[in-house]
Amino acid sequence: MYSSTTQIRVRYAETDQMKVVYYGNYATYFEVGRVELLRGLGFTYKAMEDEGIIMPVVQMSLQYIRSAKYDDLLTIVSSIPKLPTDHSITFHQQVLNEAGKLLTTGEVTLYFLEAATYQKLPMPSYLMDVLNPHYV
Amino acid sequence: MYSSTTQIRVRYAETDQMKVVYYGNYATYFEVGRVELLRGLGFTYKAMEDEGIIMPVVQMSLQYIRSAKYDDLLTIVSSIPKLPTDHSITFHQQVLNEAGKLLTTGEVTLYFLEAATYQKLPMPSYLMDVLNPHYV
Amino acid sequence: MYSSTTQIRVRYAETDQMKVVYYGNYATYFEVGRVELLRGLGFTYKAMEDEGIIMPVVQMSLQYIRSAKYDDLLTIVSSIPKLPTDHSITFHQQVLNEAGKLLTTGEVTLYFLEAATYQKLPMPSYLMDVLNPHYV
Amino acid sequence: MYSSTTQIRVRYAETDQMKVVYYGNYATYFEVGRVELLRGLGFTYKAMEDEGIIMPVVQMSLQYIRSAKYDDLLTIVSSIPKLPTDHSITFHQQVLNEAGKLLTTGEVTLYFLEAATYQKLPMPSYLMDVLNPHYV
Repeated sequence: MYSSTTQIRVRYAETDQMKVVYYGNYATYFEVGRVELLRGLGFTYKAMEDEGIIMPVVQMSLQYIRSAKYDDLLTIVSSIPKLPTDHSITFHQQVLNEAGKLLTTGEVTLYFLEAATYQKLPMPSYLMDVLNPHYV
Repeated sequence: MYSSTTQIRVRYAETDQMKVVYYGNYATYFEVGRVELLRGLGFTYKAMEDEGIIMPVVQMSLQYIRSAKYDDLLTIVSSIPKLPTDHSITFHQQVLNEAGKLLTTGEVTLYFLEAATYQKLPMPSYLMDVLNPHYV
Repeated sequence: MYSSTTQIRVRYAETDQMKVVYYGNYATYFEVGRVELLRGLGFTYKAMEDEGIIMPVVQMSLQYIRSAKYDDLLTIVSSIPKLPTDHSITFHQQVLNEAGKLLTTGEVTLYFLEAATYQKLPMPSYLMDVLNPHYV
Repeated sequence: MYSSTTQIRVRYAETDQMKVVYYGNYATYFEVGRVELLRGLGFTYKAMEDEGIIMPVVQMSLQYIRSAKYDDLLTIVSSIPKLPTDHSITFHQQVLNEAGKLLTTGEVTLYFLEAATYQKLPMPSYLMDVLNPHYV
């Protein structure tokens, strides 16, 4: 299965008065993880949007295990457990701290939609082509 | 079961370039819902923190059904499906638009912790006392 | 001069680990103030955008005098010191706490632009018509 | 004068429905620029807080010249025009896009305060020592 890692430094803006990262901000960390997974494959989500495909999130779940702290250098691990067979794709995502401890784990499901019509689309074939070899 | 509703006007800051509310911002909307549920019971989360109890989120799941748009007046419905029997409490939360359409639904589980020690605590008895009559 | 007030409850998401509202979030509070000023005049910024006019911010300055705290009920005072004579409009904005203490003061200048072409526009005449009586 | 540059990739979360970075998010970009300037000097703001010094922002001004777009790789240039002579320090900050075009420019003034008492402090001597050679 295809996996990708990227790193993020926790910003002061992302902390709350509990002195940890606000729980809603992991959605943004997960977004960065997915975008960098795509970039690692040679594509950008930006280019997909420019050609008329959008990927709204339809489902997300998160488990908060340990807190991320200000200035932590986090590792975001994003993977695609199985190849999409229709218009939806699910990412498994994890956030780890510098000590390698698992902080947060989650799953995010997105649809491929035609921006102009909101019609469901299959995953673009250029993505399928580069992902396919990782699942045989 | 105890339920509470509050309203939120979507801010420009909360939209993204898909011209809808960014998916991570529902965590904030849910937070407002829970805080206003407590206020409706005669308590504030702020006062709980001031007396040394914190409530970190340990789990969240969301289903995104329809998009919230800029300037929409959203209704947040928050409810506590069952009384806590230990240190954890689960809220069921919904976001509806002005037409009454369900946009987002979710579940959020939080722990009651002693701020100084991170020891798990049962729900404060003053909360149990006001909630109890709603579950008999 | 035309003034408008609106109220905002500080969200947990808006605090940082200094246990005050993060300094960048006042831009959002100011946005809410301006939008509610327009609504009080009988217009919405949303409708302006729908008819093809956008108002990007071109300048902002803020003085941070006292901190806003979690759960504070803030009052945002927004005023238009003088009527626009060209494509730009400047708002004076203040944030006060429940004790009436001034927390933050700022000035924000925005342009009226045609969304399709980014051409500068004068303030829409329907806005000028309702504002004009307040400046004679 | 001492200057530092760092890079930031624009996140989807940071855009708004005008398809540009929301104007309030530059405060966060500036924060990252200042923090990385300190790190480049061999210090972290996190360590300063841990030893009981906080640096709240007391003033900010921004000019928005061009828009930052989704997925842009931005360069944040942060500099300290002159050495502090009291408890305040002013940073000059710029945001440029990949083409080297200036998008945003700003000035941010912060105080050095003792966290426990909010007493004003001079800049820590270890910071003065490393900055001093850049101003002779």
